[in-house]
Amino acid sequence: MTEKPPVDGCSETKQFTFASLPLESGEILGPVTLAYETWGTLNRERSNAILICHALTGNAHATSWWETMVGQGKAFDTERYFVICSNVIGGCHGSTGPSSQNPTTGKPYGLDFPVITIGDMAAAQEQLINHLGIEKLLAVAGGSMGGMQALSWTVKFPSRVKSAVVIASAVRHSPQQIAFNEVGRQAIMADPHFNKGQYYNGNPPERGLATARMVGHITYMSDQSMEGKFGRRFRENRSATKFGGDFAVAGYLQYKGDAFVQRFDANSYLYITQAVDLFDLTALKTLPEMLQDSRGISFLVLSFRSDWLYPSAQSKELVRGCKLAGIDVTYAELSSTYGHDAFLLETEEETPLVGHFLRRIAGSVEIAGHV
Amino acid sequence: MTEKPPVDGCSETKQFTFASLPLESGEILGPVTLAYETWGTLNRERSNAILICHALTGNAHATSWWETMVGQGKAFDTERYFVICSNVIGGCHGSTGPSSQNPTTGKPYGLDFPVITIGDMAAAQEQLINHLGIEKLLAVAGGSMGGMQALSWTVKFPSRVKSAVVIASAVRHSPQQIAFNEVGRQAIMADPHFNKGQYYNGNPPERGLATARMVGHITYMSDQSMEGKFGRRFRENRSATKFGGDFAVAGYLQYKGDAFVQRFDANSYLYITQAVDLFDLTALKTLPEMLQDSRGISFLVLSFRSDWLYPSAQSKELVRGCKLAGIDVTYAELSSTYGHDAFLLETEEETPLVGHFLRRIAGSVEIAGHV
Repeated sequence: MTEKPPVDGCSETKQFTFASLPLESGEILGPVTLAYETWGTLNRERSNAILICHALTGNAHATSWWETMVGQGKAFDTERYFVICSNVIGGCHGSTGPSSQNPTTGKPYGLDFPVITIGDMAAAQEQLINHLGIEKLLAVAGGSMGGMQALSWTVKFPSRVKSAVVIASAVRHSPQQIAFNEVGRQAIMADPHFNKGQYYNGNPPERGLATARMVGHITYMSDQSMEGKFGRRFRENRSATKFGGDFAVAGYLQYKGDAFVQRFDANSYLYITQAVDLFDLTALKTLPEMLQDSRGISFLVLSFRSDWLYPSAQSKELVRGCKLAGIDVTYAELSSTYGHDAFLLETEEETPLVGHFLRRIAGSVEIAGHV
Repeated sequence: MTEKPPVDGCSETKQFTFASLPLESGEILGPVTLAYETWGTLNRERSNAILICHALTGNAHATSWWETMVGQGKAFDTERYFVICSNVIGGCHGSTGPSSQNPTTGKPYGLDFPVITIGDMAAAQEQLINHLGIEKLLAVAGGSMGGMQALSWTVKFPSRVKSAVVIASAVRHSPQQIAFNEVGRQAIMADPHFNKGQYYNGNPPERGLATARMVGHITYMSDQSMEGKFGRRFRENRSATKFGGDFAVAGYLQYKGDAFVQRFDANSYLYITQAVDLFDLTALKTLPEMLQDSRGISFLVLSFRSDWLYPSAQSKELVRGCKLAGIDVTYAELSSTYGHDAFLLETEEETPLVGHFLRRIAGSVEIAGHV
């Protein structure tokens, strides 16, 4: 509670550790460390804090993976807001995950790491927000799995958030979305180096993880963006092997797969994709019923026409649920051709839409403060 | 040339072997065996023969994999037509492929099998049609890769076909379609049992091939058909492992992947997917230019609204090319929700559309014969 936020836009990754976190599965995870970063300055009223939640393979360094949106003068304006981002639990960039040391064995958890959910990720973030001394977030925001965390905040901690920005996301994973993740998991577990998740003293299951990432990348792009970027061109350095992937698109996917294994843990991929697949705001109640206690929260929901992985229909389902629950919700379908990746790449429409929304919410906060 | 076709609708797989086939790559494959089946009776004018071309993993037994469409009283009516289907070269169901014996080594070809193309598949089929004593096919027909072979016939052997039925297909593979195939190939080659394609004396790369098939199956179904078939249900026998695929859709994909490796050769998967990726009727000329010599052929082009792997836009590109070339072409987009698999499953619209088309073509043949 005593840690002082940095005074300007600069940031470095910090760590916050707390004793234990009760998980939705009933298990208890502890100790729990969250790697996080902050940018900007928390104002005296502590009313300008925004929590940014990352997608599947992101990390706390939001100005890197969401550089289009986070920074001085950008939509998440670090001159105006105090921006926070933490690596999710289950991750492998500084927060407690399957590659962390299991305190009961002294070895990496591996598959002894408990099942985690999107709600657990949000619950861990709430500990961080408490630690930072923030009573109420101006906004919780994210794209894809980040949007699911934002949604989880609105139902788990409705009194702690003023608004939610949910981009290219869904209230639950469809069977097709589950299926793509399942292929990735099967590829990882089929790799002989997987060794039931205990590969930390040997070679990790790199080929399996690379295959998983290749599948992912196809789903993140649109047919149109692939056509524009690669077409049917052959790669410049055609490989010697007969099936080395002579097409430029194949070379790109292989490169992306190979690069990914340098920065990501295969077990984290299993746990985090499972958390996404398990996410379902409608599992117990209808969506409007589920959102009953969230009526004080303003929602901004964005989707992209070319995103076939998280199609606009999923965002519209959230919007309809909000409307039926009597929630203030703004929705726009953006025309970017980048596919699902658009939430990371597009700026022309996304920047003003998020920027205007946040300034409107911030304005109403200030007015409330003056009353 | 002397083989007599069976006299009724019964069939069994036969084999036809010829000395050599010059391939589009410049290499020569030989000897070449084609496994094939026929149904129905060739009429005296030899004018009622239809060649059916199978998709990626099909075989000569069309009444099995296309049972909705091939048989007595069905669209490809075996009481009316003499229906022929052969396993493609490069395949593993009786025709010469990478698992066949390489005459120069006495061992299976493995990756010494030459690169084959869709055009090579058609050229091998032409040898079979010659062998059967058929001067001109009433129709050449197929879905998906089968449609590509039909297209190849229309440009390579335009004087040998009266009509072409091209269903859920494309004049070239898009980068997205190439990318999905590339993931499958990478999964196979990443399997430690792959052994550079020489696995015939040991364990085949079953896990890799199963992963490839899982990716394929996702692309064959539609979001809607998956929703209807699985939703977010859990499978009945949830596995003991933490990531065993607890969702019904995951269990289905695993089952399909595991079943597939029992009937398919991984090297054939590599060669045939590559042939599909290399297919491009527009590589050298515009499509109307490419179809200039096909103006005597009538085309039926069908696509399915829910097919996102071979979207209707690809079929419409073919139709536009036909129209610009002055070709008689009929096009319909069918409303099935089955996705790409619809060409194998749908009957309500596909059966009458194909049936009427073939009877029209057959009728004009008969009239011509009477003049």
